[in-house]
Amino acid sequence: VTRVVVDVMLKPEILDPQGQAIARALPDLGFTGVRTVRQGKRFELDLDEAATPALLDRARSMAETLLANPVIEDFTVQLVDSPESGLST
Amino acid sequence: VTRVVVDVMLKPEILDPQGQAIARALPDLGFTGVRTVRQGKRFELDLDEAATPALLDRARSMAETLLANPVIEDFTVQLVDSPESGLST
Repeated sequence: VTRVVVDVMLKPEILDPQGQAIARALPDLGFTGVRTVRQGKRFELDLDEAATPALLDRARSMAETLLANPVIEDFTVQLVDSPESGLST
Repeated sequence: VTRVVVDVMLKPEILDPQGQAIARALPDLGFTGVRTVRQGKRFELDLDEAATPALLDRARSMAETLLANPVIEDFTVQLVDSPESGLST
């Protein structure tokens, strides 16, 4: 299994009201010193194929077509070989 | 500047209708072989502090309190020292 991870963030020049709302809420919760917050999306796609340059190209094309809006968003695509099963902290 | 990156994904046992909608749309766009898609959130917080273990603890606590719902979501927290300015592909 190959996992494709696509991170999509609004371009820096695009206003991010969700991020601003979080940045404004943090001090009230006792967290100071955060200058800016940006909120974006993360997609994890699992494929049966092996991780190859051709797969990376297809993944980029999926991201451009369906996952991100390239006019207002930047995205990064990473391939992860046989990911552990969603373990996190 | 230290950047804190928080990735939040629904726990594997929680239904992800957005991810399913994407998985179902991909074949119609000519992208086959994708087994599952999960959609989550990515937060990028910029702080003036240096990256220290204490900052990582505070970032975990922010994520638990405000950015993720630990009942249904898993999250990971990473610190990135002086990130390049949002460059991506």
